[in-house]
Amino acid sequence: MRVLSYLSAFHGHPYASKLLVLCSLSSGGLIAYADSQSNSKIPIVEHDDCKSQKKRVVVLGTGWAATSFLKDLDISSYDVQVVSPRNYFAFTPLLPSVTCGTVEARSIVEPVRNIIKKRNGEILFWEAECLKVDAANKKVFCKSTVDENLAGNNDFELEYDFLIVAVGAEVNTFNTPGVLEYCHFLKEVEDAQRIRRTVIDCFEKAVLPGLTDEERKTNLHFVIVGGGPTGVEFAAELHDFVFEDLVNIYPRVKDLVKISVIQSGDHILNTFDERISTFAEQKFTRDGIDVLTGRRVVNVSDRMLNMKMKATGDDVSMPHGMVVWSTGVGSRAVVRDFMEQIGQGSRRVLATDEWLRVKGCESVYALGDCATVDQKKIREDISEIFKAADKDGNGKLTREEFRDVIEDIVIRYPQVELYLKSKHLFDVTDLFKDSEGNDREEIDIEEFKLALSHVDTQMKSLPATAQVAAQQGTYLARCFNLWEKCKSNPEGPRRFRSGGRHEFRPFWYRHLGQFAPLGGEQAAAELPGDWVSMGRSTQWLWYSVYASKQVSWRTRILVMGDWSRRFVFGRDSSRI
Amino acid sequence: MRVLSYLSAFHGHPYASKLLVLCSLSSGGLIAYADSQSNSKIPIVEHDDCKSQKKRVVVLGTGWAATSFLKDLDISSYDVQVVSPRNYFAFTPLLPSVTCGTVEARSIVEPVRNIIKKRNGEILFWEAECLKVDAANKKVFCKSTVDENLAGNNDFELEYDFLIVAVGAEVNTFNTPGVLEYCHFLKEVEDAQRIRRTVIDCFEKAVLPGLTDEERKTNLHFVIVGGGPTGVEFAAELHDFVFEDLVNIYPRVKDLVKISVIQSGDHILNTFDERISTFAEQKFTRDGIDVLTGRRVVNVSDRMLNMKMKATGDDVSMPHGMVVWSTGVGSRAVVRDFMEQIGQGSRRVLATDEWLRVKGCESVYALGDCATVDQKKIREDISEIFKAADKDGNGKLTREEFRDVIEDIVIRYPQVELYLKSKHLFDVTDLFKDSEGNDREEIDIEEFKLALSHVDTQMKSLPATAQVAAQQGTYLARCFNLWEKCKSNPEGPRRFRSGGRHEFRPFWYRHLGQFAPLGGEQAAAELPGDWVSMGRSTQWLWYSVYASKQVSWRTRILVMGDWSRRFVFGRDSSRI
Repeated sequence: MRVLSYLSAFHGHPYASKLLVLCSLSSGGLIAYADSQSNSKIPIVEHDDCKSQKKRVVVLGTGWAATSFLKDLDISSYDVQVVSPRNYFAFTPLLPSVTCGTVEARSIVEPVRNIIKKRNGEILFWEAECLKVDAANKKVFCKSTVDENLAGNNDFELEYDFLIVAVGAEVNTFNTPGVLEYCHFLKEVEDAQRIRRTVIDCFEKAVLPGLTDEERKTNLHFVIVGGGPTGVEFAAELHDFVFEDLVNIYPRVKDLVKISVIQSGDHILNTFDERISTFAEQKFTRDGIDVLTGRRVVNVSDRMLNMKMKATGDDVSMPHGMVVWSTGVGSRAVVRDFMEQIGQGSRRVLATDEWLRVKGCESVYALGDCATVDQKKIREDISEIFKAADKDGNGKLTREEFRDVIEDIVIRYPQVELYLKSKHLFDVTDLFKDSEGNDREEIDIEEFKLALSHVDTQMKSLPATAQVAAQQGTYLARCFNLWEKCKSNPEGPRRFRSGGRHEFRPFWYRHLGQFAPLGGEQAAAELPGDWVSMGRSTQWLWYSVYASKQVSWRTRILVMGDWSRRFVFGRDSSRI
Repeated sequence: MRVLSYLSAFHGHPYASKLLVLCSLSSGGLIAYADSQSNSKIPIVEHDDCKSQKKRVVVLGTGWAATSFLKDLDISSYDVQVVSPRNYFAFTPLLPSVTCGTVEARSIVEPVRNIIKKRNGEILFWEAECLKVDAANKKVFCKSTVDENLAGNNDFELEYDFLIVAVGAEVNTFNTPGVLEYCHFLKEVEDAQRIRRTVIDCFEKAVLPGLTDEERKTNLHFVIVGGGPTGVEFAAELHDFVFEDLVNIYPRVKDLVKISVIQSGDHILNTFDERISTFAEQKFTRDGIDVLTGRRVVNVSDRMLNMKMKATGDDVSMPHGMVVWSTGVGSRAVVRDFMEQIGQGSRRVLATDEWLRVKGCESVYALGDCATVDQKKIREDISEIFKAADKDGNGKLTREEFRDVIEDIVIRYPQVELYLKSKHLFDVTDLFKDSEGNDREEIDIEEFKLALSHVDTQMKSLPATAQVAAQQGTYLARCFNLWEKCKSNPEGPRRFRSGGRHEFRPFWYRHLGQFAPLGGEQAAAELPGDWVSMGRSTQWLWYSVYASKQVSWRTRILVMGDWSRRFVFGRDSSRI
């Protein structure tokens, strides 16, 4: 989840930041907004009472995808309602910092109502959980998550013309027994706060009178399952917290602390460049963090974690004080139920087409961690492409004819560009060369198939990161904003099968790189253009990128304040 | 709990603050301390293994009383262990600010281990609750409050030579049905955080679709029971939060919010000067906060609060969204059990003598909210005083003879000075004047009794405030520090009954005034010398006093940072 540019979505509206500052300076936050409303005496109106002709858009979620969609959406043409159990947007890439108090939880959240305020209308927000999508009747059933003691019904339903599913994912336990009961996760702000309290608990328990050394060691053994960016960053944060702050106030147990990272693969950070992976492992070894690779966790109990060595099949056990489970994502119940309804029940994760439209369901879009883009294989369409390109119908494709369709192909099948890059080809017409590299003037259908036969190997499903979610939100908002225009004047690529053009270009992910902070003021980063950067300067780059990517000036200043506080006073160890 | 000077206790050690800054600036908090320890390789030792000849002092609690005691105690002569379920000290006078996010919870807490670090020894801290005091065997039984899942026994016992009971008090519900189940309290940091979330819940619920206006109003009715300083400050904070911040992001319900303060007496803030009480009521009326006096709450249910009008006996009910119960304090279970053991079972609250020694029990001291000082009536000792003063034994007391004992009387019976002040007498020998105000040269026992007969009316039990607790802690630390010296060379007043002198002067409370913040940047204050100050300038005085009284530079800077943030960005309404 750590990436270089989360919110290209938020870049489009620099005035938003400025407005926030202006409003904020006028004493007490958001007076300016209030004033603009105060004359109109807004009555309490049910949504059902607003009989407008606008299309009704219901958005589920307030994470990266939903928030960037809402920020960019032009609501003059839509009635928008948002449903989420969290009334705030959380800057999730800083969650590992929250676990150890490097950054405070409240510094990385922004009320969603502040973010989605619009000048030419209102987006309605309901703090509730969507329990069921009724795709047939275009309804969602929601339940408020607040205390049952409050007056009024907690259940309500909303009708939609378009539904945007951006509810995110839940943790994937791979059905490992004991994980739900005894492990901590790192997906929500509350998770991070709970981890922080538990770390302190482990230390407080370990120093109590009457414990054996063995018991103290058990309580001070912190295990992280999953060597991806989140797990690694948490291990690094925890190491800093323990050895920069906690050992000073719990000096009696400082030699008993152990941190272990368990990874099923052979290396941690295996989605990163190999140099970064090696650098991280060396850094962890120097720091005394155990990296245990090639192990699969079989089950977890309150004090014990059992693993199987992948190479030998041996069983290994280790006692623990705390386990943080940070391995992959799984679908939420509401999404699974929805998938059953629309015939996607056998799939692992909700599938959309390249326009983020849920497959097998009208008017529903899904983005972010809850869905995956099911990319079209060029192989399946190759005959139609050939037919469409072969204007004179002579069964041969000339270089000229190919050039006419090439732009549409590249837009429609993003894997083509990746393939060319992987082959170090700079021009698509290089595909016209024969196996010896000689130019050909025209090719037939079989030669065409052969030339494109390996393109589909470059198809990769997009990672479940903030970067992807934010770009999808921005993309979808643009589609909604251009709806009318593109209906009459489509901007998308040619439809090779049915003729005509797609209304919009398909979603196109631009990977801007990713960071891996490794503790001790060191970080590693993959930067655009396949650059790799490691060390202290990268940590400072991390600070500046993360500060600049904050969603509001308030959180930006709070986060920078937290970092400064940590430098001066260290991290707080009060158990609250 | 709002007072002018909480920690005269912390004034004695200005170097402590400086040390903290020095340590903190040396990167990562408390390195300096760690270095001083690093060579000695402290082993894990059980307290029982330390066979020192020092007296063992066990302190229960980490509130104002315990913390100021520990700060000032010279631990070169004592082995000190501290037991508390909270591993931090909380600056409780700012709790009302935490309820609405004016100040963050973490800004008002400081790890107790940071506070009690000493340069010439170690104070041991155990995060645990004391479940039972065994006064006969000089033991306390404790239980760790951390997760049962961690390794090792949670129970342990400690032996003491001296026990300092400073566990504070719990809320007093006056056995009103439903209070424990449905009301919020404002005693702990967690209480304040819970109130903050509940206020947001009430707003989120009130804006949901499908509620009637009546239901919305119910959810947005915030009731405060108790018009003392805490209740009033919370009402003011809540009013500011709602009308400065929340109405801007929940504009649809802004006209439905109501705040009510219920007070059984005739006026709110009735322990304050009458001018302050009136000022507060006028301010609240202008703000639209309902002040309902002369009502007693009979019971509370999830959505309804039932009261009896004290004047008419009529029953009145009001629906509510949230109730904050802020009325007086009661004894904790461990203290009640201890009182049973030592024959104080029939009393309402644990009694100590003027030296803070628990009555009926050797070597146990009690201070802060959990105990009350049972002051000696001068009437009971009057014959002995007369006998001791009448040196020549002629049954008459001359002015000269009286002057000889007067200092001891004033020290031993603090009510004498209060009595003189109330009668506008400047010299104690004015008591020698007869009823017409004429000087007398000598008086007999009956005249002496008459002259002092009304002195005891000035006896007042001390309020349950931070100011009292902190002064008691400092006082007791001084007694412990001077123990050996005062054994041989007592500094206390004459013992009129048994002869000789008391080892120490009795505890003497110096009231330094108190504040009542009233919202909208206005406050009222009673200042030393019976001054009363009200308005905006008083709020700024409040800011500066509260900033200066913070226990560490870290919390001072954080609190001031929070205040500035609130001025610029308003309060955060994220539900975390």
